[in-house]
Amino acid sequence: MAEGLNAAVEAASKLTDQPSSGHIQPIGFGDRLADRVQRRRSQIVLGLDPDPARLWPEALELAGGTASGTRSHPPIAEQAARAVAAHCRLVLDAAADQCVAVKPQVACFERLGAPGWSALREVVQDAGQRGLVVIADAKRGDIDISARAYGQAFFGATPTPFGEVPGLGADALTVSPLLGRDSLAPLIAAAREQGGGLFALARTSNPGAADVQDRELAGGGTVSEAVAAMIDELGHPGIGEAGLSDVGAVTGATAPERLHALRALMPHAVWLLPGIGPQGGSGRDLAPAFAPGPAGGLVSASRAIVYAFERDGATGTPAACANDEAARLRELIWGLYA
Amino acid sequence: MAEGLNAAVEAASKLTDQPSSGHIQPIGFGDRLADRVQRRRSQIVLGLDPDPARLWPEALELAGGTASGTRSHPPIAEQAARAVAAHCRLVLDAAADQCVAVKPQVACFERLGAPGWSALREVVQDAGQRGLVVIADAKRGDIDISARAYGQAFFGATPTPFGEVPGLGADALTVSPLLGRDSLAPLIAAAREQGGGLFALARTSNPGAADVQDRELAGGGTVSEAVAAMIDELGHPGIGEAGLSDVGAVTGATAPERLHALRALMPHAVWLLPGIGPQGGSGRDLAPAFAPGPAGGLVSASRAIVYAFERDGATGTPAACANDEAARLRELIWGLYA
Repeated sequence: MAEGLNAAVEAASKLTDQPSSGHIQPIGFGDRLADRVQRRRSQIVLGLDPDPARLWPEALELAGGTASGTRSHPPIAEQAARAVAAHCRLVLDAAADQCVAVKPQVACFERLGAPGWSALREVVQDAGQRGLVVIADAKRGDIDISARAYGQAFFGATPTPFGEVPGLGADALTVSPLLGRDSLAPLIAAAREQGGGLFALARTSNPGAADVQDRELAGGGTVSEAVAAMIDELGHPGIGEAGLSDVGAVTGATAPERLHALRALMPHAVWLLPGIGPQGGSGRDLAPAFAPGPAGGLVSASRAIVYAFERDGATGTPAACANDEAARLRELIWGLYA
Repeated sequence: MAEGLNAAVEAASKLTDQPSSGHIQPIGFGDRLADRVQRRRSQIVLGLDPDPARLWPEALELAGGTASGTRSHPPIAEQAARAVAAHCRLVLDAAADQCVAVKPQVACFERLGAPGWSALREVVQDAGQRGLVVIADAKRGDIDISARAYGQAFFGATPTPFGEVPGLGADALTVSPLLGRDSLAPLIAAAREQGGGLFALARTSNPGAADVQDRELAGGGTVSEAVAAMIDELGHPGIGEAGLSDVGAVTGATAPERLHALRALMPHAVWLLPGIGPQGGSGRDLAPAFAPGPAGGLVSASRAIVYAFERDGATGTPAACANDEAARLRELIWGLYA
């Protein structure tokens, strides 16, 4: 793992202080991901969307200590954030070995305010140390200086008169393409600089995807397909030796014929497939995801793994059940492309 | 159609903690805003997108004290966040009286990590105490439990085993409609519960808006217009006595004919118009914004106000120039509908 993603990110971030002439280009996201998938023999993304009201019991015990509040961090938020961080650590202990990446849902941390952001940073660092690719699921999208600020928040660093403030250090970020190419460009630049990547929302797996994404365009195709073409275009300069670009797509595993059409439009994009588990979708129909190779599709599962112990007939600790379910998914998906 | 949607919003609101029976319904966002606009005689929204490298000099002096770092908050981030908070306070001191609302750009705080979120909370509380409507500019959009988590983060509170963690306490939130109605329903429920509102991206003012938002649909109209119709439908149950709903629209002030078409599609929506100042657009073409009354259009300005002192020919302190510019914009816009 010495030449892992984290080391490369660290090396790259050390370079950001230097003028760009003489820059050593970090290995691109697609190649790093392909390597990681091969070495871990996994395409599973461990989704972390911790609900403080539904944490593993052991996490609550670990976080049971007294809280030291300050003016701006009420003790309750700190305690809750500590429990959330402990829960994530336990889930990672249980299932990380079966996975290639982790996907913290930023909303679930953000709702705990400043202590929640500290917990998120801990989770990101912990996952990175375990050799996991970190995909911050934030679905950000804005223009101009705001897009650049999000780039600093998730990938880079913010220059201040007091020194640089490091960002979250994520390897990848989910983004919304609604505001168009100029809104994504600063985020792509920030990601690419670190050897990181984006996953833009191409076609989500919820019923509401019909409201905008599935609309037919006058020139043919759907809004999703127009977005897919945009993803392909934006990712082209980032295609690596493995044939994968650094601008991927969130593509719900909901309809096989749709997946074929989308894959034709973005042959080099890594897909992040959230449609496994509670959101529906099954492994059988995912073939187009893996057309560019095993790392062409990353399959996300969160509650299916984390709450496996609550399922009918489950026996064993939360950790054991999580590991079993993650292992089962890993084998299922690994078998699909082979 | 509206019935199905209402049911979804109602179902989402049942997922919050409080039983809805016996609830005293707060005054809706539209009426609160209309009242505020009348009393303050202003439709100006003070945009706060603080760049730590370009703060008012006085803010740096105020934040010059020593930092007390902890493991998870490096001192640099805390110092920078303190300077950002001081800057925002000074800008509010200077210009708040000319404005009806404040719009912190969340990205600019988020990039400072946990201390940035503390600074954001301070700014929100400070602005609220000054009688300003607080619009968190976060452009959030996600599905299911993530949407509910964002609702808790910005409007409500998060139940935890340690007690409730209060959200940011914003009055309104900018959101992305790309994921459709079921993604917005939990946010609308969370906002409505507090007498708050949303501003969904209808047509942004950047060139990239052409990539997705301006696409012509096979059934006629553009993606933006389909979104506008969705905004109208979603806001219907929230229309108050002033004729304004609680689901507004971010509508770039870029093309007069487009504004007329969009207003016809969403006659009750409050518009948040970011196209003043550095992003282009002028007051002359804004008439459709104010068709439902003076509070039908809120005009945002950030750098135009904050950096007025740097403009050619400007004399006076940053505070004096900010006040002058905010006053000028206030008069300009107030005169448009009268």
